[in-house]
Amino acid sequence: MKGEIALGGGKEFDLIRAMRSRWGNRASGIGDDAAILEVPAGERLVVSTDASIENVHFRRDWLTPEEIGYRAATSALSDLAAMAATPFAVLVALSMPEEWVPDLPAIADGIGEAASIVGAQIVGGDLTRASELAIGVTVLGHAQNVLSRSGASVGDSVFVTGTFGGPASAVLAFEHGETPGTWARERFARPQARIREARWLADHGARAAIDISDGLLADLAHIARASGVRITVDLDALPVGEGMDAIRAASGGEEYELAIAAPIGLEIETFTREFGLQLSRIGAIEAGDARVDVTYRGDRVAPPVSWNHFSH
Amino acid sequence: MKGEIALGGGKEFDLIRAMRSRWGNRASGIGDDAAILEVPAGERLVVSTDASIENVHFRRDWLTPEEIGYRAATSALSDLAAMAATPFAVLVALSMPEEWVPDLPAIADGIGEAASIVGAQIVGGDLTRASELAIGVTVLGHAQNVLSRSGASVGDSVFVTGTFGGPASAVLAFEHGETPGTWARERFARPQARIREARWLADHGARAAIDISDGLLADLAHIARASGVRITVDLDALPVGEGMDAIRAASGGEEYELAIAAPIGLEIETFTREFGLQLSRIGAIEAGDARVDVTYRGDRVAPPVSWNHFSH
Repeated sequence: MKGEIALGGGKEFDLIRAMRSRWGNRASGIGDDAAILEVPAGERLVVSTDASIENVHFRRDWLTPEEIGYRAATSALSDLAAMAATPFAVLVALSMPEEWVPDLPAIADGIGEAASIVGAQIVGGDLTRASELAIGVTVLGHAQNVLSRSGASVGDSVFVTGTFGGPASAVLAFEHGETPGTWARERFARPQARIREARWLADHGARAAIDISDGLLADLAHIARASGVRITVDLDALPVGEGMDAIRAASGGEEYELAIAAPIGLEIETFTREFGLQLSRIGAIEAGDARVDVTYRGDRVAPPVSWNHFSH
Repeated sequence: MKGEIALGGGKEFDLIRAMRSRWGNRASGIGDDAAILEVPAGERLVVSTDASIENVHFRRDWLTPEEIGYRAATSALSDLAAMAATPFAVLVALSMPEEWVPDLPAIADGIGEAASIVGAQIVGGDLTRASELAIGVTVLGHAQNVLSRSGASVGDSVFVTGTFGGPASAVLAFEHGETPGTWARERFARPQARIREARWLADHGARAAIDISDGLLADLAHIARASGVRITVDLDALPVGEGMDAIRAASGGEEYELAIAAPIGLEIETFTREFGLQLSRIGAIEAGDARVDVTYRGDRVAPPVSWNHFSH
C-alpha cells in the first residue's frame, strides 16, 4: 500500500496560495510557523491588533469584498498612525464561512492594497472556517518619536486632520436603505491611515495623538483621561461634509482622521500644502478635571458619547 | 446645558478594565492605540497570529472558559516554539456574543496563565461584539538561532517530543457524547507550548522544526516540501497514549508537540532529564521527491492526511 502524504493539500492551502498569488511581492516570508522580521536599529517596535466583523463593522451589501479587506487593514494601520509609527509588517487572521470563499481573492486584494499604500509587507496569517466573516489584522511599525494619548499639556491646542461626517452619514443612509453620497461613501469605504501626516506632526511639535475610531469626542475623552487634562472643543470649527451635522460628525466613529494636541504655533499651512489635507484647530487643552467640554453655536452641548460596537 | 463627555464609558471599556485587572502585572502598556516594545539587541523578531473559533477549534460544553482562553493563547505561542523563539509579548483580539460576556474574566485568566507560563506580557488587544466567540492571538518572540521548516538535510533523523493521541482521543470521545480519559482530556484542554524545549533543541543541533497543529504527518509534509526532502516515518516508534491508535494519533491535530530534523547524535537522554519529556526518533530525512512515506507494523500505510478546519 502506498504511503504518500499529499503536500500542502486541502482547501485551506489552496486558498492561502490564492491569497499569496494576489499579494505577489507585497507578501514575504509566508509559509513558516511565524515570520522573522528586523526592526531598524535605533527605532522602537509599535504593535497593534484589530478585528473587523461582519454585521458589526460592515455589512455585506454596503461594501465590495475588496473594500471590506482594504478597510479592515486600514483600520488597524490607523492605530500605528496614532503613534506616529511607520508600518512595516501586517499579519492577517481570516475567519470565514463557505459562502465568502469566492470573495477571498478580492478581500486579499483590498488588504494588499492597504498594506502597499503604507509600504508594509504582508508577512503571515491564519485562515479558518467560521460562521461569519472576521478579519483580524495585526500591524507592526517602527518609530523614533512615538506619540501617545498621554502627552497633551495645558496650553496646547487641539487639531484634527481632514473633514468629518462622511462615515456617519454613509452608515445612516445605508441603514435607511438609501444610497450615500459619493464623498460620504468613499470616506466610509476607503478611509486613509494618516501615516505620513502623523510622522510630520510628530516631527513638528505634536505631543499627543489619537486616531478617530470611536468618534471624535469619545477619542478626545481618551486623551483627556490619559493626559489628565480638560479639553474644550468648539464644534463650529470642525470641518464637516456638505450638509452634514457637526454633532453627528463629532460622535460618529471610523473616521480614521487624527486628533492631536500641539502648541499653538503648528504650521497649518505647510501641512496642508504638503498633504493636500485640512488641519483645523478645534479646541484647547486646559487645566481641570479630565473631561471634554463641547460648545456648538455658542452653547455648551452634550452629544451622544460614542460609537461603541458593544452597545449597538 | 452640561457638555461633559463620559470618560472611557460604555460596556466595552468596563470589560477591558475587567480583563486588565485579571491580568495584573502580566499585562503592560494596554490603553494606547498600540503597544511600544523593545526587541533585545542582536535578536531577531519572530511574529505569528492565530485564531480560535467556537465550534471550529472548541465547543463550549467541552472546555471551561479558562481552558478556552489558555488553549487559544498556547496554540499561538506554539508557533513561536516551532521557530525556537522566546515569546515576550501577546496581543488578544476577542470577538464575542453577549452570552459569553460573563465568562470573559475566566477566558482572560486562561490567556494570562498561558502568557505567564512562557514569560510573555499581554501588551494590547481589541474587544468587539460578534455572533460567535473568536479569540485572535498574536504573539511576538525573539530568537538568535531561528528554526524553520526548510532546514532539514538528507541524513538527519526525525524526532518528536512527547506522547501523541491525546487530543484526537478526547475529541472522539466528546463527539460521541462520552467523557474522555483524564490524560487525553488534559492533553486537549491544556497543551504546552514547547518553548524551552525548542530553544534547547536549536542549541543542540536541530536544523528544522514544526509544531504539530495540523497533525504529525501533515506537518511533516510541510517540512518535506519546505526542505525539498523525502521523509520516512515508522509509526511503531511513535509514543502514543495507552490504548490509542498510532495512525489516528499521527493524523490528529492540535498536539502542540514538536517535530524536528536533527543529526542522529542528538542527546535524547539529556533532553529527557532536562525537561521530563520524551524525545523519540521516529524517522529519517532522505533524498527524493518531497513527500512523507509511512510504515506501521512493517507495512507502508496511507493514513488520512490532516486535521483541516476548512474541510470538516
